[in-house]
Amino acid sequence: MKAARFYDNHDIRIEDIDTPIPNDGEILIDVAWAGICGTDLHEYSVGPLVIPKPERPHASTGDHLPITIGHEFCGHIAQAPDGAVSADGTPLKAGMPVMCDPRLNCQSCFSCNEGSTNTCPSWGFLGLSGGGGGGFSEQVAVRQFMCYPLPEDMQLDHAVLIEPLAVARRAVKQANVPDEKIKDMSILVVGGGPVGFSVLCNLKALGATQVYVSEPTALRQKQCKGWCSRIFNPMQEKVADECRKLTDGKGVDLVFDCAGIEPGMKDGFDALRPKGTYVNVAGWEGPFTVSLLIRSSCKPANKDDKIPMQFFMMKEIDIRTSLAYDDADFAAVVKDFVAGKFAGAESMITARIGLEDVVEQGFEALVKHKDQHSKIIATPKAELLPRKRRNTGKTNGA
Amino acid sequence: MKAARFYDNHDIRIEDIDTPIPNDGEILIDVAWAGICGTDLHEYSVGPLVIPKPERPHASTGDHLPITIGHEFCGHIAQAPDGAVSADGTPLKAGMPVMCDPRLNCQSCFSCNEGSTNTCPSWGFLGLSGGGGGGFSEQVAVRQFMCYPLPEDMQLDHAVLIEPLAVARRAVKQANVPDEKIKDMSILVVGGGPVGFSVLCNLKALGATQVYVSEPTALRQKQCKGWCSRIFNPMQEKVADECRKLTDGKGVDLVFDCAGIEPGMKDGFDALRPKGTYVNVAGWEGPFTVSLLIRSSCKPANKDDKIPMQFFMMKEIDIRTSLAYDDADFAAVVKDFVAGKFAGAESMITARIGLEDVVEQGFEALVKHKDQHSKIIATPKAELLPRKRRNTGKTNGA
Repeated sequence: MKAARFYDNHDIRIEDIDTPIPNDGEILIDVAWAGICGTDLHEYSVGPLVIPKPERPHASTGDHLPITIGHEFCGHIAQAPDGAVSADGTPLKAGMPVMCDPRLNCQSCFSCNEGSTNTCPSWGFLGLSGGGGGGFSEQVAVRQFMCYPLPEDMQLDHAVLIEPLAVARRAVKQANVPDEKIKDMSILVVGGGPVGFSVLCNLKALGATQVYVSEPTALRQKQCKGWCSRIFNPMQEKVADECRKLTDGKGVDLVFDCAGIEPGMKDGFDALRPKGTYVNVAGWEGPFTVSLLIRSSCKPANKDDKIPMQFFMMKEIDIRTSLAYDDADFAAVVKDFVAGKFAGAESMITARIGLEDVVEQGFEALVKHKDQHSKIIATPKAELLPRKRRNTGKTNGA
Repeated sequence: MKAARFYDNHDIRIEDIDTPIPNDGEILIDVAWAGICGTDLHEYSVGPLVIPKPERPHASTGDHLPITIGHEFCGHIAQAPDGAVSADGTPLKAGMPVMCDPRLNCQSCFSCNEGSTNTCPSWGFLGLSGGGGGGFSEQVAVRQFMCYPLPEDMQLDHAVLIEPLAVARRAVKQANVPDEKIKDMSILVVGGGPVGFSVLCNLKALGATQVYVSEPTALRQKQCKGWCSRIFNPMQEKVADECRKLTDGKGVDLVFDCAGIEPGMKDGFDALRPKGTYVNVAGWEGPFTVSLLIRSSCKPANKDDKIPMQFFMMKEIDIRTSLAYDDADFAAVVKDFVAGKFAGAESMITARIGLEDVVEQGFEALVKHKDQHSKIIATPKAELLPRKRRNTGKTNGA
């Protein structure tokens, strides 16, 4: 079958490889759609990071690069053993549409035993860590509990967003605010890309009403419109000052960092109210430095400072980190997605392409034309592509 | 009267200045003892930091350097207006021994209105920000509610520790663990100086049983003995590995950073269990950098890394900051101190000196002979000094 395999940064190859053979009890999935995640992009730009190198194979799969990539994927069940059931006991049969939770974990460590499967020390992902394959291919072998059945009439090019939406749901939960209080919170989302937009979708689904976004690119600003109360351009506006104006001088209660760059963190720390909560959702490609000495009376720092220490110390802010999602997060987002709570989220998709074009029209497009793209999804099935693309023959070599 | 006044780093002068004149309703205190705090040392070494410069006077006092220093102080009431009462309604009379909460705040902003007086944007301290003076002098003018009456028979050279103990109580509260659960927590305290030791004292007062300390100097190691289960020398032992050995491989539940240096933060992040909580209590003189890229499977980083990103991201750790203390923290520590829950805490005091010697035998001793000192306290009253010192005439020029 065709698969996109990661060899090194800037080196993903479309190759013909053997179809994965399911282990006992496993399910074989015919992939319909898979999305390119920010993590995939980090790997493509500066990796291998999470993807294991030959000298250090993955702790649980034993695999190393080349690795079939793609961990945001959904499709139909190609083959299921007799008696197969999903995590909630639903029978799994060939032909059923399913979303896959791609996470691997040991199911036996203290984190897994506590239900914190996302912090399992030997965590991994199908599509990053080997195992049964990855979403940028024709088929993937998965364990039964990874399958979340979807309604027959659901559009799978929308449902594929369940994975990034689950990442964002986790981040919102990490803010440690009860769901029913989210509506009373003033919130700044730093970065309006796929992760930031997914956080917006979750905040809206949970009833938030006072949500601001800081995002410099016009396309992403446009996408976020209608999902938040106000959008700032951090290149033209002083985000923290604007947030204070909108909150009676206090600053916002919560910040979600969906950018992973120092100026964004600085804005976020600055915009927070005393005793506010900062949640990092972003993957960082570079370091950040909390620098300089304590200043008197929490005055704003000079513009050439990095992350000033007074933001870290003087407001007693709570910095929380968020990693992927756990079983409960994923199940909650599937449920909300099926219930229509994320209607319109598909507007974050800026291109639907064929698997064979995933490097040039996917990864390269996201790196070179960030201002024109947000989420790009790919399919190995030519018949699923928009007619225009299908007819050009550009997107699928078959 | 005599007062130690801060002019610049390495420039504290003992001068004759006017006695402070209490404002309406204020109390005049005869200082018995004042302690040198880590913040004072930061000011002395690399300041002015919190101490306001002439070009930016303090927001609430309007004062700037030279500033009488010393914010950890206690003494006797020299003069009180009729009807004066403490925060809990106790009448305040001349001659009463009192501990002072030295904090200044506006009492009107949203933080103060919420009871979070420690995050008031115009916070300050007597002894750092001007106002009614500072503890390294003969007298200080304070507001009534800043006075906490002490029993007549209490040793004031012990009670002066209530202030650093309140800083540590705040830190323990910031960990967000209910008091009754502290006993079940595995805890690493990074740094066994006055702040770290004060954290130990509070943890013991709250019933903690599994507390480890990382501290390189022999004197401080000795002081911490008896207040914790295990002491590591971070120059000779791999602190995080040792913590994992002691916690069935998990890592500790809580870390208190009382050191404020990168290697300590790195050890702390590394020693934490997944989903653990890191509380920064330390003042930092320099920057810290969270550097490098995400690594696979949370493997320890190379020894030359700064704070590796995987510690920040991959364990979903919660980073909390702690700033001074609020009214409730201070009141709780006064109560526990009077009840004898901090008996033995005075062993952190390594020298009792006269006010006139506070530069050479206080600040310089702490900078130059850190390995021989922890907490140094000073008095303007020659009769309170240990007889030996008094007789040498070294500690008080009177």
